[in-house]
Amino acid sequence: MLHDNRAEWRKKLGNVMEGHIMHWVIGTLVVANAAILGLETFQDPAEWQRSWLYIINDIIILIFAIEISLKIIALGKEFFKDGWHVFDFLVVFVSILPLREGLEAIRSLRVLRLLALIEFSPKLRHIVRALWHSIPGVINVAFILVLLYYSASIMAVFFFRAEGVPGFENLGQSMMTLFQVLTGDNWSHILYELQRVFPYAWIFFYVYYVMMVFVVLNLFIGVVVNALQTAERELFLDGKSEHDQIREDLSQIKRELSYIKRKLK
Amino acid sequence: MLHDNRAEWRKKLGNVMEGHIMHWVIGTLVVANAAILGLETFQDPAEWQRSWLYIINDIIILIFAIEISLKIIALGKEFFKDGWHVFDFLVVFVSILPLREGLEAIRSLRVLRLLALIEFSPKLRHIVRALWHSIPGVINVAFILVLLYYSASIMAVFFFRAEGVPGFENLGQSMMTLFQVLTGDNWSHILYELQRVFPYAWIFFYVYYVMMVFVVLNLFIGVVVNALQTAERELFLDGKSEHDQIREDLSQIKRELSYIKRKLK
Amino acid sequence: MLHDNRAEWRKKLGNVMEGHIMHWVIGTLVVANAAILGLETFQDPAEWQRSWLYIINDIIILIFAIEISLKIIALGKEFFKDGWHVFDFLVVFVSILPLREGLEAIRSLRVLRLLALIEFSPKLRHIVRALWHSIPGVINVAFILVLLYYSASIMAVFFFRAEGVPGFENLGQSMMTLFQVLTGDNWSHILYELQRVFPYAWIFFYVYYVMMVFVVLNLFIGVVVNALQTAERELFLDGKSEHDQIREDLSQIKRELSYIKRKLK
Amino acid sequence: MLHDNRAEWRKKLGNVMEGHIMHWVIGTLVVANAAILGLETFQDPAEWQRSWLYIINDIIILIFAIEISLKIIALGKEFFKDGWHVFDFLVVFVSILPLREGLEAIRSLRVLRLLALIEFSPKLRHIVRALWHSIPGVINVAFILVLLYYSASIMAVFFFRAEGVPGFENLGQSMMTLFQVLTGDNWSHILYELQRVFPYAWIFFYVYYVMMVFVVLNLFIGVVVNALQTAERELFLDGKSEHDQIREDLSQIKRELSYIKRKLK
Repeated sequence: MLHDNRAEWRKKLGNVMEGHIMHWVIGTLVVANAAILGLETFQDPAEWQRSWLYIINDIIILIFAIEISLKIIALGKEFFKDGWHVFDFLVVFVSILPLREGLEAIRSLRVLRLLALIEFSPKLRHIVRALWHSIPGVINVAFILVLLYYSASIMAVFFFRAEGVPGFENLGQSMMTLFQVLTGDNWSHILYELQRVFPYAWIFFYVYYVMMVFVVLNLFIGVVVNALQTAERELFLDGKSEHDQIREDLSQIKRELSYIKRKLK
Repeated sequence: MLHDNRAEWRKKLGNVMEGHIMHWVIGTLVVANAAILGLETFQDPAEWQRSWLYIINDIIILIFAIEISLKIIALGKEFFKDGWHVFDFLVVFVSILPLREGLEAIRSLRVLRLLALIEFSPKLRHIVRALWHSIPGVINVAFILVLLYYSASIMAVFFFRAEGVPGFENLGQSMMTLFQVLTGDNWSHILYELQRVFPYAWIFFYVYYVMMVFVVLNLFIGVVVNALQTAERELFLDGKSEHDQIREDLSQIKRELSYIKRKLK
Repeated sequence: MLHDNRAEWRKKLGNVMEGHIMHWVIGTLVVANAAILGLETFQDPAEWQRSWLYIINDIIILIFAIEISLKIIALGKEFFKDGWHVFDFLVVFVSILPLREGLEAIRSLRVLRLLALIEFSPKLRHIVRALWHSIPGVINVAFILVLLYYSASIMAVFFFRAEGVPGFENLGQSMMTLFQVLTGDNWSHILYELQRVFPYAWIFFYVYYVMMVFVVLNLFIGVVVNALQTAERELFLDGKSEHDQIREDLSQIKRELSYIKRKLK
Repeated sequence: MLHDNRAEWRKKLGNVMEGHIMHWVIGTLVVANAAILGLETFQDPAEWQRSWLYIINDIIILIFAIEISLKIIALGKEFFKDGWHVFDFLVVFVSILPLREGLEAIRSLRVLRLLALIEFSPKLRHIVRALWHSIPGVINVAFILVLLYYSASIMAVFFFRAEGVPGFENLGQSMMTLFQVLTGDNWSHILYELQRVFPYAWIFFYVYYVMMVFVVLNLFIGVVVNALQTAERELFLDGKSEHDQIREDLSQIKRELSYIKRKLK
């Protein structure tokens, strides 16, 4: 009897926590929280701690903590089965963590609670799910990209490690330099410096650039083609059901004909 | 009687204002206006006011004002229901505004009247309408992009705000710096400066860059797939009407067969 | 009789000039010509005139001139109806032009004869024709792009023309600066300089950047979708012919049925 | 009898070498080898030769050499018919090459053995094969791109070779400069320098830029459309087999009808 009461109470609490009103309240607080964080960046830290926004901010975080706690009470173990809930929990947990001086910056991760706005809109949730599901199709080509990138970075160190040449002293520097080349940012300057020592460095650079662009291009095309194929396959299945109807008609006609034949015999 | 006369007169005026000849006249003046504005930029402002092009320009703007007035008289309230008309009205209104010294630059907005050329070509109107209709499909993903961008900008301030590090002093600077990173312009220089103070800044930068590129990529693909799906659905509907014809034939055959069957009984 | 002879002789000449052997000979000379021009760039002009490659080059150009002349004799007016022939003629004409000192650089246009290699391969001709035919689909959106670009450039002059701000003194400079912004090259530096005088310049820049990228994106998508639609329409027409065959079968069946019905009456 | 034994022994060896266990062993060593090469880049070469990782590395290369030898023994001539095997062979061959001082860097090519990981995953092999097969479709447009690029580079030398203008002294420099322009890296600086001597240089630059971007865009679109067409053609063939079934039904119906007609006569 007591148990039933509690279960019902928890269910009611769950309904309230996931209801429209709660979504609006939390959504507004999330936006307010993000806005306050934005304002904080324009202030001196010392001065900030004495402002009334600082207190409002603390209250909002407190409300968030209470909200999450209530949700956990309401849903129990179920709570942690939804990726969004886990995300919320981690973000709020980081916000209330008592951190040492130098690590306080980590607490700014609470701005990520903004992404909770996605959780409240079915359309945005759908898009994020689509983004999520597009990862496996990308991961394989991305793996090949990483293999090529790592190999090129190591070769670059062994080829170009020399005095007076910046950017290729070790694997870390080499990877950074080659990433910069790939994004097309100031690569000509790097090559220019390099060619004063290694006049044929352009061969390595051009082969690297063309290969990577080619693989990235194919990665991109692969994703587009995949997305389109699933879209088309649906249309095709629609077309197939049309065909099935036609074939059904035809088999009916055939049955009638064999009946007529039998009669005529 | 008098009322009828006026209505007819307004209708006639409307036909003239939207007719071919008027389009050519206004189109020519729009191009002339834009060309004169172009020439003005090569001249000293003081000297310009004494040139005869200055007077021609004023005359053109006067003609525009008269044109818009006549159109409003002809169409009445209807005028403001067409987006292009409202656009024209605002641009011409800005052109004749009596502005204080420092704000005269705003009057250069009248060059936007050039876009009225789009209004005169059915094909270009169609393209602009297509552009306009592609916005809702983009807006959702753009919203996610903005959430990520804002969150990253705030975190960047809290992580990297330190002496000797330019570009992360407050949210405004941080947003500008991260936009620059996203467009790939000179981001390596920013990172280089940053890594002298924060050696692990590259982790933040790479995660930010890859995430944003991934979302933008998916935004782009989404638009392509959407555009193609509508195109295909039309083809599919054509195919469906073909199927309908076939099924009509089949049902006719079935009717004939049942007639034959009845005869044979 | 004499006339017939001449016509036949011209036809034979035409066959030789457009034949396989001639293609190989001219193709080889075209490549040789381009290679010699490449070598010439590594030499001092004075020294170059005394080298034996200089003489070979002159001989090749002479052969080109003879080839074109023979083709014109063979084909008569027909010659100028093929775009490739006109292109060849112009390039060879420029090569043999007696030019004044400072204008000799124009003669380097003869390297464009390299593009004649495209003319010899059916596949490449096909691609160039496809490129050519894709222009009309692009031209309309490109026109809108140019209108926006021109308008933005003029407004930028009126907004940002001030002392100490480089890049916006007149329409020419403004167009160049905004093109640079569009290609993403060093735009942050321009904005930085600008914001020291006009702190809100970023609004103009961001609106301009996002609008142009949005239109370019749609231009690109439009081309892809167009290309795909033509590809699909072909498939659809194939599918349609399949449907037509089925409907033919069906009408045949209906004819047979009405024959049977008549018999049964 | 002896011959049979040997053949069987070779087959068994082949099975072992291509088996799961061997793949895991070699895969692990490949990753270890790449990781050690990465660590080597952080070390002084002299110090490195005295570390124990140097010895492990040598052992791994020895194992690779033995592995390849065993595979060659097992498969005989067949070994060299698989592109991946040839690739492995070359990479291992380079690793054990006794090289003179200055050429030791070439040995770092052994990091490419990392790509052998692709060989072990059927999905990755499939992607690489798809990448490989997409090359012919690209090669033709790439050829046109190269013709334009070479022509533009030669013309640029003849147009812009002058004192005080860097980047156009000969064909090599010109090609490098125009490649830099194409990737959008710092091209505005090059143009700025150029325009101090040749005020109309922007015409050449803009024509070059727009033409190349247009061809590259079409290259890209061509690849996407090709990939989609093959995908669609498959769907179409599926649809066709549906049609074939319908037509089979129809011809059966027609046969029955002609039987009935014969009966009724």
